[in-house]
Amino acid sequence: MRDLSKADANVLHEQRAQLAARYDAFRSRGLKLDMTRGKPCPEQLDLALGLLDCVRSGEWHGEGDDERNYGGLDGIPEARRLFGEYLGAPQAQVVVGGNASLELMHGIVRDAIVHGVPGAVAPWGRLGRIRFLCPSPGYDRHFFICEYFGIEMVPVAMDEHGPCMDEVEHIVAGDETVKGMWCVPKYSNPTGCVYSDEVVERLAAMRTRAPDFRILWDDAYAVHGLHDRPDRLANILDACARGGHPDRAYVFGSTSKVSFAGGGVAAMAASPANIAEASRRRNTSTIGGDKINQLRHVRFFRDMAGIEAHMRKHAAILRPKFEAVQDVLARELDGRGIATWTRPRGGYFVSLDVPEGCAREVVQLAADAGVKLTPAGATWPCGKDPRDTNIRIAPSFPAVADVRTAMEIVAVCTQLTAIDRRLAAA
Amino acid sequence: MRDLSKADANVLHEQRAQLAARYDAFRSRGLKLDMTRGKPCPEQLDLALGLLDCVRSGEWHGEGDDERNYGGLDGIPEARRLFGEYLGAPQAQVVVGGNASLELMHGIVRDAIVHGVPGAVAPWGRLGRIRFLCPSPGYDRHFFICEYFGIEMVPVAMDEHGPCMDEVEHIVAGDETVKGMWCVPKYSNPTGCVYSDEVVERLAAMRTRAPDFRILWDDAYAVHGLHDRPDRLANILDACARGGHPDRAYVFGSTSKVSFAGGGVAAMAASPANIAEASRRRNTSTIGGDKINQLRHVRFFRDMAGIEAHMRKHAAILRPKFEAVQDVLARELDGRGIATWTRPRGGYFVSLDVPEGCAREVVQLAADAGVKLTPAGATWPCGKDPRDTNIRIAPSFPAVADVRTAMEIVAVCTQLTAIDRRLAAA
Repeated sequence: MRDLSKADANVLHEQRAQLAARYDAFRSRGLKLDMTRGKPCPEQLDLALGLLDCVRSGEWHGEGDDERNYGGLDGIPEARRLFGEYLGAPQAQVVVGGNASLELMHGIVRDAIVHGVPGAVAPWGRLGRIRFLCPSPGYDRHFFICEYFGIEMVPVAMDEHGPCMDEVEHIVAGDETVKGMWCVPKYSNPTGCVYSDEVVERLAAMRTRAPDFRILWDDAYAVHGLHDRPDRLANILDACARGGHPDRAYVFGSTSKVSFAGGGVAAMAASPANIAEASRRRNTSTIGGDKINQLRHVRFFRDMAGIEAHMRKHAAILRPKFEAVQDVLARELDGRGIATWTRPRGGYFVSLDVPEGCAREVVQLAADAGVKLTPAGATWPCGKDPRDTNIRIAPSFPAVADVRTAMEIVAVCTQLTAIDRRLAAA
Repeated sequence: MRDLSKADANVLHEQRAQLAARYDAFRSRGLKLDMTRGKPCPEQLDLALGLLDCVRSGEWHGEGDDERNYGGLDGIPEARRLFGEYLGAPQAQVVVGGNASLELMHGIVRDAIVHGVPGAVAPWGRLGRIRFLCPSPGYDRHFFICEYFGIEMVPVAMDEHGPCMDEVEHIVAGDETVKGMWCVPKYSNPTGCVYSDEVVERLAAMRTRAPDFRILWDDAYAVHGLHDRPDRLANILDACARGGHPDRAYVFGSTSKVSFAGGGVAAMAASPANIAEASRRRNTSTIGGDKINQLRHVRFFRDMAGIEAHMRKHAAILRPKFEAVQDVLARELDGRGIATWTRPRGGYFVSLDVPEGCAREVVQLAADAGVKLTPAGATWPCGKDPRDTNIRIAPSFPAVADVRTAMEIVAVCTQLTAIDRRLAAA
């Protein structure tokens, strides 16, 4: 495969003609492929159908009082125990909530804005300006929470070990308006990286100018490895305690991509002080999660071994899709000098970087040929990728053959756009 | 029965001795009766057990796309239709949420504080001071939401037709900081009154100084009549539209006291502008409710006729408990000149007013004899009943015999306290 950056105009024109022909051929097929979001596919959802048979009319008794009635703001005991194992915290430091960790995160930020966090000098909303570090590319819904509450976002670069810690440490040490940081520490959205032990230790130990600095640790893909030997993530709560900042992190997780997306269970773990405060605040906004659905999950999965066995079945479905992405990208783009991409060992995404200033155009071209991608820019705060390079690939939902076709189209669009730029610059 | 207010000291002493003997007898029984909250009893919850068998593993297909996956922020179509009927609004003006209307209410107030409501000059949080009218006695969780967000509460008197409208109209016309009002319009918590058509019309039509004034219409007991001919509540959304204030009201409801408390489904209805804004904001805090549980509810209840038939079975269980409260209060306190109470035709509560300055003591005395009541003051903003008279009676959970015993104890405590006050004043 020829490196396009070294090709002359004749070669470029020739290649462009071939690519345009391929593009037109794809386009004429009237495809409708959706790679916009990290949605489980029906075969993955089928794996959890037994959940629906787990709590029938005569079987609603759990360990607690009456799972059909009020009570249990922080979740039923057996669910708190299971999610404690899942999130790496003792049962007493776990809240099992409703169906989405997003709701728990939004609630924690809301509480901090309105009332402050334990150790805060004031509610964050009373300070003139507050900022969050946002490792980018990152997860758009984290950024939306910041936008909702008027929190300024400071992008921080990511590498294969996580956020660039020199940059992070420098910013938090010097700026007291920096109150928080979003992290998807395992199989990060969208790069798929797993934070290294060193990154976790440094995050936990670093000196912050704000005494009430918080890390929102969204462990969304805790058990979502694609291979037999899943990656290991260091325990942030333990690291923070060791680092002398026991209240620094809130850990979030859910079964949205384990059982049903929307019909799952979400949970949060943190220090005793943080959990006590969160429960006190939550009492004004919720009656607690759906305890019967919590019971279904405990019955269906039983324990961490049950969850892990279940997730191996997910991996068997997802692996060929991720392999298809890698195959096509390698075949089409390797050695062309126009794109780089990640090779995640888990999670839901592949992050593709195209030449500067090209991402929007690639996404648009792909859309015109029937492939819907996550909007370019969505992986950056305020939807603005400053270099317009990043495209998030979400291969979980379509069938393998469709993933392959979609990726071919993405690769063709990437090459077309790159060649056009070079020709225009010549 | 002798009117205590006219009795002389000898009679009072004699009666006190008899009451004290009864009190000691109760106390020696070591009772443990809980009348603190409006909790359904197990027999009511049993009525909905079929819900757990409604969506088994092969039966999860509804009208929508895939109820097991992401999507459906505002609820599945069939649930929106059913709750539209329930709340009195077209399907398009209905959001079906998670398991609690409390969450929907908290979210609406949060949105208003952070971003304002449609028609607002500014986010409410940016104004120095804002206030809500709180018909009192009222529902403590409404008051908690105000406390959470730092909203000042202005108590407004209630009578058997609802809030005193002369007072309400006077305040909202003159004070632009009054931005909202809490209402439990049907079988009000705790008085049990149903807002009259005139009250609804006046609320909808009244001139408010704040252009973005909102009514939070918590129709928690919409189908919770105790008798064959349930009471009718005027449709607030229609009234507001007619009154020229289409965006004035948000209507809330849930099946917490229809199916399972905590495992139910909540919904909200409002004008198209309010619903569009709410959905846009909700997108940052939730992935939508549990669609499978929504499907369960639609399958189990089918339609409003199904809900009404179900609620007649609830009424059959609750009616004897409410009758027991009335029987005992009438026998013990009628004509004694020391207490008044409501005779609700639905809902979950009876409101008891004891002599001024006595409610706390009555609740404490009852607790000492093994009857836990809602803390005195809880029915008023900030937990402060200015005259210390109101006690909320919640007879739904205990068995009929226990309700009777608990009410005898409450009545004895009320008389003891009243006599002691008179003797002390003499």
